[in-house]
Amino acid sequence: MVYLQYNPGKTGKNKVEEIKMNTVEQIKLFMEPRSVALVGVSSRTGMHSFNILENILDLGYRGNVYPINPNTSTILGRKTYSSIKKIDADVDLAVVSTPRSQSPGIIEECIKKGIKAIIIVGQGFADASDEEGKQLQENIIRMIRNTETRIIGPNTIGVSNPFVDFSTSFAKQSEIKRLPIGVISQTGMFSGSFPDLNLLGKGIDLGNACDLDFADCLEYFEYDQDTKIIFLHIEGIKNGRRFIEVARRVAKKKPILALKTGVSPRSAKVAQSHTGSMIGKNEIWEGVLKQCGIIRIGDFDEIGDLIKAFSHLPLMKGRSIAIISLSGGIGLMAMDACEEYQLNIPELSPETREKIISISPEWHTINNPVDIWPAMGISRRPFGEVLRTTIEAVLTDKRIDAVLLIVGAWFESISPPFSEIVLEVANKFKDKPIAWAPYEGWLYKITAREIEDKIKKHGKVAVFSSPKRALRALSKLADYSAFQRGE
Amino acid sequence: MVYLQYNPGKTGKNKVEEIKMNTVEQIKLFMEPRSVALVGVSSRTGMHSFNILENILDLGYRGNVYPINPNTSTILGRKTYSSIKKIDADVDLAVVSTPRSQSPGIIEECIKKGIKAIIIVGQGFADASDEEGKQLQENIIRMIRNTETRIIGPNTIGVSNPFVDFSTSFAKQSEIKRLPIGVISQTGMFSGSFPDLNLLGKGIDLGNACDLDFADCLEYFEYDQDTKIIFLHIEGIKNGRRFIEVARRVAKKKPILALKTGVSPRSAKVAQSHTGSMIGKNEIWEGVLKQCGIIRIGDFDEIGDLIKAFSHLPLMKGRSIAIISLSGGIGLMAMDACEEYQLNIPELSPETREKIISISPEWHTINNPVDIWPAMGISRRPFGEVLRTTIEAVLTDKRIDAVLLIVGAWFESISPPFSEIVLEVANKFKDKPIAWAPYEGWLYKITAREIEDKIKKHGKVAVFSSPKRALRALSKLADYSAFQRGE
Repeated sequence: MVYLQYNPGKTGKNKVEEIKMNTVEQIKLFMEPRSVALVGVSSRTGMHSFNILENILDLGYRGNVYPINPNTSTILGRKTYSSIKKIDADVDLAVVSTPRSQSPGIIEECIKKGIKAIIIVGQGFADASDEEGKQLQENIIRMIRNTETRIIGPNTIGVSNPFVDFSTSFAKQSEIKRLPIGVISQTGMFSGSFPDLNLLGKGIDLGNACDLDFADCLEYFEYDQDTKIIFLHIEGIKNGRRFIEVARRVAKKKPILALKTGVSPRSAKVAQSHTGSMIGKNEIWEGVLKQCGIIRIGDFDEIGDLIKAFSHLPLMKGRSIAIISLSGGIGLMAMDACEEYQLNIPELSPETREKIISISPEWHTINNPVDIWPAMGISRRPFGEVLRTTIEAVLTDKRIDAVLLIVGAWFESISPPFSEIVLEVANKFKDKPIAWAPYEGWLYKITAREIEDKIKKHGKVAVFSSPKRALRALSKLADYSAFQRGE
Repeated sequence: MVYLQYNPGKTGKNKVEEIKMNTVEQIKLFMEPRSVALVGVSSRTGMHSFNILENILDLGYRGNVYPINPNTSTILGRKTYSSIKKIDADVDLAVVSTPRSQSPGIIEECIKKGIKAIIIVGQGFADASDEEGKQLQENIIRMIRNTETRIIGPNTIGVSNPFVDFSTSFAKQSEIKRLPIGVISQTGMFSGSFPDLNLLGKGIDLGNACDLDFADCLEYFEYDQDTKIIFLHIEGIKNGRRFIEVARRVAKKKPILALKTGVSPRSAKVAQSHTGSMIGKNEIWEGVLKQCGIIRIGDFDEIGDLIKAFSHLPLMKGRSIAIISLSGGIGLMAMDACEEYQLNIPELSPETREKIISISPEWHTINNPVDIWPAMGISRRPFGEVLRTTIEAVLTDKRIDAVLLIVGAWFESISPPFSEIVLEVANKFKDKPIAWAPYEGWLYKITAREIEDKIKKHGKVAVFSSPKRALRALSKLADYSAFQRGE
């Protein structure tokens, strides 16, 4: 680490690249500190005590930990210190969990001690209703001006880095996995896990974002080898111009997914009170995110879907899809969703149709969507043969960029099971995404989750809970592919 | 049953009420037949054989079953008949699963035998690409004209009635439950179970709907004591005027939920080929369904959510909601969704605010959404007390019609667990819906599904997988309440 050469770049003398590296090194102090002071750690331990020290020890963090509590001499067998200045060693990071009124004094101590990274966990700053809270936050910002110290927070659970078994969360995390998904959020709710996925890579909760902001953290993830996908939860951003410049550059290298909240007039007003100036209307954000090449997440449910798609599937090179279903009716629903997400359902090529017609009853229309039920239910072809023939046919077709499978999960009991056939085909056609929305309603008792678990281990297929959600995710793979091509 | 007095009402001499009862009695022949002839039943049995006889026997149907197969004398120990006319007893219902070309001959035999209910399972009629299929379907319609025989299908899995342990589905149903949800669909995919719910009440798959249609089946469910909620999956409807008249009447008595597919220009063209004339544009359907008081389901995922809401929650009398969350950031997201679903987030009354302020830190803003984290994390109030005080306060508030809880599931390990407190409060406030979207990401390992299972047994709370989905469901409870009040 070269953070001793740190220069906040406020003089404007450094070249851009140098400043960037400095920010990155600075954030490394938060993400992989060699030593941490925990200010205001409670002597209460055990379930529901929200004791940061206990959580850090449980995770197995290997750096030095200095708990600060003037009212006791040990907590969990660890020696405590009465104040920061009593620590007779260098400290990379201070995590401050005191009542808000004590914060200025503690920050002053941290600066004197030479601590360059401070996380302010406490609430009641810009997020409070009273003038005092806002004043306190402004004081803090003034205190670090012209120092080498940077702050994450206040009103945050801080950072989480499973790659070094470290987290500053006061909430006990049931599982932190070394996954290549970097999170930058403004609520601690995302630094636990994603719905339906239970995953988390490195995480930064900016809270009120009084100092370090999205652009800074994006630069950290830009250079971070452990992170392949970046997820943002944005309430508001202070320096819009810098965000756009940085995000657009980073998005060319790694997909950035963003959930922007506070977009209705009332919620924007609330978000405004937490953060800075660039709250803006929904339409403005739509444009900004698009310009940056950021994939916008419309809904809580979509987070897990997109993480899954971007983690497991190749990009969709065009917008043309083939839909394979076991019911004409379900195929219709998927067509409606394609319209919504601007995906095309082209006619299949004559060669492709010929391959599928050869296994179907003569009266059956072979169109896109392809209904494969008649080939099985009426022509009595083996299920595996029908599935394999159809998927291979459409994936070979040059008109097709991706396939959506809406086939039930019940043939898992047959040998070879559906999922093995799908995986086999996926390995043959590695450059076209296969999205599977197994309809759970029918028949034998295997769940979509079991199929998903099986498939996740093996490769380039992703399972979604409905055809519409699968198509929504595919459309974002197509959006990002277009951005990368400069379209 | 009085079906011997059946009169299809085509002479126009009967009074409306009589015709209605006749339709209902007619459909009863399909739904609760005393005897069934299975035409074209295969001698192949066992897994994946799609043998209707086997499925019927497995379900424990108590009527008489007559398998028809000219090539064998017994199937599964049951005597088979070489043709319909060889059955020397009355037959209420014939289920015809032969290749399409044999259908006209078999229908003629059924009519001669006096069978008044026929399900045509086979495909290749109006759903086929060739002229022959369309011609066959027209022939069939002509054959039953001026007879007492009615048809469901073709291209259908028929009917399902768990209340008499009966189903004509060739697909083995893993579980058929006696639930008060009546299904009328145009694909067999819905006659299995609903995603996430695994439930099915009585079900009718209309398939190509060459004869019996939505209006007929709606009248059946109108009078059916076992059915409290009606779910429709509509591709197209032939007689729009009659549908509107019947649906509007039935919707006043029982909530009707409808998923309309085939709404994009291309999918509408495909739907057209299956069914009749009233395909129409999405905007037209939007108006028609609204006029009928039918709750429109926008998405596959929404089916389960709305069934859950209408099964477990009281209606929402107005459109004003209180949101209780453990994170300001998540509260913001919910505000955005409220705007989308036209729900208001009113200021709480001074009395309500006072109750919540009394347990919160002094600097904390008590607004709607209510962030209860500071009361627990900072004022160190017991979690249960905070939750109970807050929910009771907002539900007592006259400005509030429903509450959305966005609180984690991790306090289930505390005594009393969150879910018990929520249930207790729900029992006190029976006329206001409580929707719970537990955030799964945080902490101890209880899942939303476990909470849901616990709560479902007890009462008036429903659990949803995201705040947005909860709000979408609540907004539909408000829509239906407004329709019932004539607004």
